[in-house]
Amino acid sequence: MTPADPGALAPARARELFRGGLRTPTAGWCRGWTQANLLAVPRSLAYDLLLFGQRNPAACPVLDVGDPGAFRTEIFGGDLRTDLPGYRVYENGEPVADAAEVTGLWRDDLVAFLIGCSFTFEDALVQAGVPVRHLEAGTNVPMYLTSVKCRPAGALAGPLVVSMRPVPAPLVAEAVRITARYPAVHGAPVHVGDPAEIGVADLARPDFGDPVEVRPGEIPLFWACGVTPQAAVMASGVPFAIGHLPGHMAVTDVRDHRFLVP
Amino acid sequence: MTPADPGALAPARARELFRGGLRTPTAGWCRGWTQANLLAVPRSLAYDLLLFGQRNPAACPVLDVGDPGAFRTEIFGGDLRTDLPGYRVYENGEPVADAAEVTGLWRDDLVAFLIGCSFTFEDALVQAGVPVRHLEAGTNVPMYLTSVKCRPAGALAGPLVVSMRPVPAPLVAEAVRITARYPAVHGAPVHVGDPAEIGVADLARPDFGDPVEVRPGEIPLFWACGVTPQAAVMASGVPFAIGHLPGHMAVTDVRDHRFLVP
Repeated sequence: MTPADPGALAPARARELFRGGLRTPTAGWCRGWTQANLLAVPRSLAYDLLLFGQRNPAACPVLDVGDPGAFRTEIFGGDLRTDLPGYRVYENGEPVADAAEVTGLWRDDLVAFLIGCSFTFEDALVQAGVPVRHLEAGTNVPMYLTSVKCRPAGALAGPLVVSMRPVPAPLVAEAVRITARYPAVHGAPVHVGDPAEIGVADLARPDFGDPVEVRPGEIPLFWACGVTPQAAVMASGVPFAIGHLPGHMAVTDVRDHRFLVP
Repeated sequence: MTPADPGALAPARARELFRGGLRTPTAGWCRGWTQANLLAVPRSLAYDLLLFGQRNPAACPVLDVGDPGAFRTEIFGGDLRTDLPGYRVYENGEPVADAAEVTGLWRDDLVAFLIGCSFTFEDALVQAGVPVRHLEAGTNVPMYLTSVKCRPAGALAGPLVVSMRPVPAPLVAEAVRITARYPAVHGAPVHVGDPAEIGVADLARPDFGDPVEVRPGEIPLFWACGVTPQAAVMASGVPFAIGHLPGHMAVTDVRDHRFLVP
């Protein structure tokens, strides 16, 4: 079911597989094409979410916003209700279902936000010789709730969520330098080193995704993660929202290069 | 009334002078401190304006958003109703008054947007040896309505507004390189060369600000301008809004350096 080289697929072909029922994390898929977090909220909450993004640009860099009820946006040529490899549905801040598609739940007042994803800069890391452990392992990236609070916006408040990649100490500066050039997909790490300093108790037990090995001589690097607004949905008791399943991203029709700064 | 060296002033001192009634363009004021465009709109229009910024990031980079009715924001320690050196008031899309302060007009539902301003990168240009003509002349920067359409957002649509600086041909690349590093304050030029290509008929007759001399061997460079959302207010017949008087900016309490990318 999973293709031999998912990195070589075009976005439309990957979305076709997901629409057909393939459920998989998308790290390493469609090399060179931007992946995005999805969060769709009722129009009444859309201003707060857009403002949450403005106030927390590292965690919630808004790449595109749909019109109310629309299931396409400018950068996503597929159908947002079916073309992701996994969805998570929230009611009153609780995750009530993980689903393969959400056609029946897509209300006329839903506004879809596509939010930058750090998978976008992983190809640049690999090209520069920085190993990416979860790509090597073929697993989902580990993600953690932290003790760092986001800046609230209206009805939305919550903790920063981070993704973690262990990097050999001699390559840490290079990993920072490379990812800093992609501010629209989370940019430079928000934390380097001791997980306890940001309230992460145990790297082996991520809140989302899969654990990865941290080898001797490696330093854990933490990047702000686009699951953060889903954590705000939970912390704030938002009545209704639809997100992607963490790590199971929307594969867009724009190139990573668009989000590279000089 | 104008201080001998306005570039050396601290933001709070400049705002005090403006509060006291000094009306002046702020190019060159408070070197190293970020200046911002102001646009305050009713809460009912705030989502459209925030989305307009998301969809037109070169012209409308949103630096900060106030709470409804608030006249301070995180990056602006003064009083937004009195501490700018000039205001423009709009009703039904028409500029109905230019004012020295707007205390009596600041409604409880007004949401203040502070939007990046290209004055922020002018100090970096000067430091690099790129002359900035309106600074040399002590005048306001020239600004032009163009034939380029912004991407609409809800009730807001309108033309791109640009600021223009003539640059000697051998320094054009340097001017592009430097300003590209400040995407949050309009970034690289949106156009280099022939004004007619973006619908500007006569450089000597700017729509806002003052004309400047373009000398032989100089090329006009055009940057997206934060007056663009005021042009959208006019083009869209927005019922009520308060902006700054073009070139008469909000001097904030954050350093230019904050908006420099790697």
